[in-house]
Parts: sequence; C-alpha cells; structure tokens
Amino acid sequence: MQTSEGQRSATRSSATQSSGSRTSSGREPVGPSREEVRVRRAPQRASYDAASVNAILDSGFVAHVGTVRSGVPFVIPMFYFRRGDELVLHGAAPAGTFRRAVSTEAGTPDGGTTDGGATDGGTTDGGAVSLCVTVTHVDGLVLARSAFHHSINYRSVVVMGEARPITDLAERRTVLDSMVDVLVPGRSRDLRPMTDKEVRGTSVMALPLATASAKVREGPPIDDEEDYDLPIWAGVLPLRTTYGEVVSDERLHGEVRVPEGVAGLVGGQL
Amino acid sequence: MQTSEGQRSATRSSATQSSGSRTSSGREPVGPSREEVRVRRAPQRASYDAASVNAILDSGFVAHVGTVRSGVPFVIPMFYFRRGDELVLHGAAPAGTFRRAVSTEAGTPDGGTTDGGATDGGTTDGGAVSLCVTVTHVDGLVLARSAFHHSINYRSVVVMGEARPITDLAERRTVLDSMVDVLVPGRSRDLRPMTDKEVRGTSVMALPLATASAKVREGPPIDDEEDYDLPIWAGVLPLRTTYGEVVSDERLHGEVRVPEGVAGLVGGQL
Repeated sequence: MQTSEGQRSATRSSATQSSGSRTSSGREPVGPSREEVRVRRAPQRASYDAASVNAILDSGFVAHVGTVRSGVPFVIPMFYFRRGDELVLHGAAPAGTFRRAVSTEAGTPDGGTTDGGATDGGTTDGGAVSLCVTVTHVDGLVLARSAFHHSINYRSVVVMGEARPITDLAERRTVLDSMVDVLVPGRSRDLRPMTDKEVRGTSVMALPLATASAKVREGPPIDDEEDYDLPIWAGVLPLRTTYGEVVSDERLHGEVRVPEGVAGLVGGQL
Repeated sequence: MQTSEGQRSATRSSATQSSGSRTSSGREPVGPSREEVRVRRAPQRASYDAASVNAILDSGFVAHVGTVRSGVPFVIPMFYFRRGDELVLHGAAPAGTFRRAVSTEAGTPDGGTTDGGATDGGTTDGGAVSLCVTVTHVDGLVLARSAFHHSINYRSVVVMGEARPITDLAERRTVLDSMVDVLVPGRSRDLRPMTDKEVRGTSVMALPLATASAKVREGPPIDDEEDYDLPIWAGVLPLRTTYGEVVSDERLHGEVRVPEGVAGLVGGQL
C-alpha cells in the first residue's frame, strides 16, 4: 500500500489546487486545500471530492484514529459515522493527547510548532484535539507475475483536523441515537431510551471533513510489459466482509423476535 | 470501541508489572514493560502475552501506521507481516516523520521531549522512526437493549516502538519473498525473480514487538440487569471477511492454471 502502490501525503511539495466548484453536498471539495492530505505516491489513485470521500466513509464504521502524546504517535480503533460535513467519533481523545483551546479563528492552525504548546493532562474538556482519522476497506489481493507488482486493492480515506468534543447534551443524545441507527437501521426506536446519566457519561467528538483525501486501488495487476509473456498465473483474489447469521442473546425476554432492521443485514455485504 | 468498551493506554498511571517468565517463542512477554501500551479502559479485555498478540497479528496483513510529522499525527494503511519478534512493514515512513539516529542504547527512549530533536527531512535513511502500528479485526455488532451498551466485537493489537529500515539487500530480498508468501502460500516460487533494481527500490521497515498489547471484545451484549426484563431483542450480528472467486488476469499467457496456493484460499476466511 506504500511505495509504488502507496498512500502518502506531503507538506512540502507544491500542489495543483483543485477548482473551487461546489459539490452537490454543498460543501467545498475536500483538499488539497491543505497540503497535509495531498497524495504524493501514486497520485493518479487519489481524489479529493466529497462524493468519493463520503462513499468510502459511509461503507464502514471503524476508523483508526491517530493522536500525538508527548511527541509520540498513538493509534486506536474507534467507532465513527459521517454526519454531513463532519465525522462523529465515539469516545474521547486518549489522555495526554495534544489539545489546544478551541479557537474561533477557523482554518488557521499553526501546524509545525504545535508541540510547543502541548498540554499533557488530557482533561481540558473544552479543547480541540489534533487528529488523523483513517478508514480503510481491503477489497482484494492483487497477485502479479513478479513480487514487486503484488499489491492490495483497497479504498481508504485520510482526514486530518481538529476535533471538538460534543458538549451539548441534547446534541450528544441525538448523535448517540444516530450511532446505533448507523449500525442497524431503525435500531434506536426499539431500545430503552438513554438516561441522562448515560448521555453525560459518553464522550463524542466531531471532526470536520474539510481536509480529507481518498485513495483507491482497483482492478487487475499491472505487470512489466515483458512479464506478460511468462507462463505465470496472475489475477485478483477478492475479499469481502459480510454479515453472518444472528446470534440472539440467551437472556431474551419471552417471545422477542429479531427486528427487521437486523434481519435485513444478514448475508449482506458491509 | 472507546469509553466503556474502549481501548486506551496511559502513560501516567501506575501499572502492575507482568511476570518475567519467557514464552514459548523465546521472547519476553510483551508489555506492560513500557507504560505506553498498558490498556486502562476496560483492562479486563487486555492481554500482553506474545501468544495473544501474535494470533491477532497473524490473522491480517493491513495495519494502520501512525507517525508524527511536525507535531501532527498521521495515519496510513500499510502491508505488514510478523517475522518472529518483529513486524515487517512494506514501505517507508512518510516524509517529514520524526526520526532519530539509530541508538545502541536499546530500551531507553527519551519520550516526552522527542519533538525537540525532530528532523523534518525524512531522508535520514539510517535513522529509526517512532511508530504506532495498530491492527484491528472487526468480528461483529453487539446489539444491546440500550444504546449505551451497544458495542463492537473486535480483536486489536497496538505496537509502539522505533522502526528501523531494512537496509541489507539480501535480508530485504528474503523479506520481500516472505511478503508474497504471507498473502498466498508458496507464491514466491511461482514468480519471476526480483531484480536487484526492484529490491533496491523497495523500502521495508522492521518494528520490534517488545511493546505491544492486545485487546479483545467477544461474546453477547452486557446489559444493565433491569433491562433484561424488557421485550427488546438483543444479540450479536457476526461479521466475517472471506475470499471470493478468483478473477484471472485477462492477459494470462496460454494455459496457465490457478495455482493451488491461490485456489486453496477461495471461500476461506481471512
């Protein structure tokens, strides 16, 4: 996924700016408005438009979230979903993560000197936190005629920015209901309503999608021209993730049936 | 995957040290020899022994690799495989990633002041790079009777440490052959051998598994005791990733058949 097939962005090279046309979602096309997410390796596989980014984000629910703690990188899996022009992340930033006070000067992050202002407490609840959120779907093995051209078919999105904690309890309640509905359509209707204590006790962050890039590798292997004459098998071995059969809880109350929203997912592809 | 169900480590709290007994693989049990990877949230789901860590790592081949560039986190997907007590990563660290000169003083990273010594060039090929490598397998949706107790079944490993580039070309060639054999058993035998130019042109890093933690959530939802009386369906919806039917390259030379190693994967679970 790296080197010739790799995903990588750069902060120093010059970049072609995308046009400023708006997309149907009403937001500016994502990146490379900021250089951080510009894809340098295999740039023909990159895209920055909202439709490409959103399609990949909406096909999953687990992201890998990177933070910086005491100058060291830290990556954890987190549940996410997209809400319009932002990602909603379930959980708080890890303790010790670099945070900054929420600034009203949008779009002027002073990257490059961030660690000088790092607080190591992780308790500044009103502060924004610098995150890199990466979502990857692995679609198959690309088996070429040489080891060098072996690759992986995948779709991935990298989002960089500053996440704010969702502190308003009414907003947070709505978001938490949306989360279960992202997993299973209509799920929140069936559940015991959340208590105020539960809403207060759950951390949720929102990260703007203003700076995001998508990268996709698909299709057959691409071999050196002279290698196509070799009697070596090459092709793609697809991978897919599907929902299996429901395992009902042993402690179900009486004659409770599997809801339609759940049953409708069985056998389907993620 | 965060908060009550979350994976998180801490650098400040005191930790119970694991015993020093050696595992069958001959290496010290991983963590919490260093505090970075100690799991604080839901610690009952954590383990630090090599067998648990290795089993999860050996069940996949795409990791999310976190680095720090100019104080900002950056996460990309990379191909990996485990070779004994280390992870081998296909690719180079992103340009601008924090690096340090390779030190012979093993085990004495001066974390906490790292950014003071950051170089921003990304060209110090002999230098080690500070990485966090996270591998996550999503096993199912955990659908509880309340939104609060919804969760995800997963297996994940977090590895932190300093990766060294594999600069020896003979070692690198061996490692690159192993990579294709990790994807498909026996694959390297069938391929056109790598040229010296290809070996020189491919970056590979090795990361020790000395500091790693595993975290696993499995089984049914765990609801509040009083909620078990509610007529609400609850259970687990499993997710599995399987290999589909082979798609042979359109430009195969003559009567080349699908190799046994490839055919043997079809229909199987990752």
